[in-house]
Amino acid sequence: MSTFLRPVLGFSGYSGSGKTTIIEKTIKRLKNLGYRVAVIKHDVHDFEMDKEGKDTFRFSEAGADEVFISSGEKSARISSFPRTMEEMISECGHADIVLIEGYKYADIRKIAVTSEKSGYDLPCSEDSLEAVVTDDISQYQGRAGIPVFYRNDVEGITGFIRERYLDNGKD
Amino acid sequence: MSTFLRPVLGFSGYSGSGKTTIIEKTIKRLKNLGYRVAVIKHDVHDFEMDKEGKDTFRFSEAGADEVFISSGEKSARISSFPRTMEEMISECGHADIVLIEGYKYADIRKIAVTSEKSGYDLPCSEDSLEAVVTDDISQYQGRAGIPVFYRNDVEGITGFIRERYLDNGKD
Repeated sequence: MSTFLRPVLGFSGYSGSGKTTIIEKTIKRLKNLGYRVAVIKHDVHDFEMDKEGKDTFRFSEAGADEVFISSGEKSARISSFPRTMEEMISECGHADIVLIEGYKYADIRKIAVTSEKSGYDLPCSEDSLEAVVTDDISQYQGRAGIPVFYRNDVEGITGFIRERYLDNGKD
Repeated sequence: MSTFLRPVLGFSGYSGSGKTTIIEKTIKRLKNLGYRVAVIKHDVHDFEMDKEGKDTFRFSEAGADEVFISSGEKSARISSFPRTMEEMISECGHADIVLIEGYKYADIRKIAVTSEKSGYDLPCSEDSLEAVVTDDISQYQGRAGIPVFYRNDVEGITGFIRERYLDNGKD
């Protein structure tokens, strides 16, 4: 496994498995517990981030290689080139933990999100598997050593992440 | 003046002066000449960057401190905290020149964009003034040493920027 300056945890799932919703709920819960959370998403299509007509959009359209914006509240950056997962992780200095969506083949620990739709197949290698989140935990009975959570069990999932990845002493 | 690893040039103008359009045209021309251009914008309101319903939007809404996304073509980052101009400049490693919109009081060289609407007042101190872009150059006749360009003279503006800030040997 790759090593990073801060905890990095992937969420891996076939399309339609509901992993985005699980990441969303995990972020909310970790934030409520006082942790700083960064998320990195791999987009297999070509995402559109900005809004037509905005100055930043116009600068990107004009060909700017990078457009930065900051207000007194927040900031953003759009680049006309890709970044690797590792580059983005290295920029997460403001986070206690980095959650990753996509990057199926990345050498990081992963939570597999499975569903009936894909026959409960694991979307990542067992080597990298940290836990399974699913709608039917009976599918994984008898598989020793891998924690399995119901998809609605945000407490359980987050508790596991804290215990395994975070200091567990913030609340 | 502050010093940076690469050329930094501000565009300063009162609201409605047309500075965004001038920056847009300058980017296009510099890109056509083969330069890599970064733009940094200071937003005095609170910008909205992402699109409702997108995964990245959902992660930000859930409270993520930073959301990164990369496709094979481009990448973006949204942070729930501001960045200083200097921090953003330090991230412009992919650019030959950094153009800045806003940051009126920043200690950088500036091109003033003026118009009839504001009585041709200069929007920045003469100390930091590099050139003036305006719709009536006769307003600045007799002021020695400050280059003045018509707002449609993109060739002139860009030529000046190249000569003063870039290697001038790319085409």
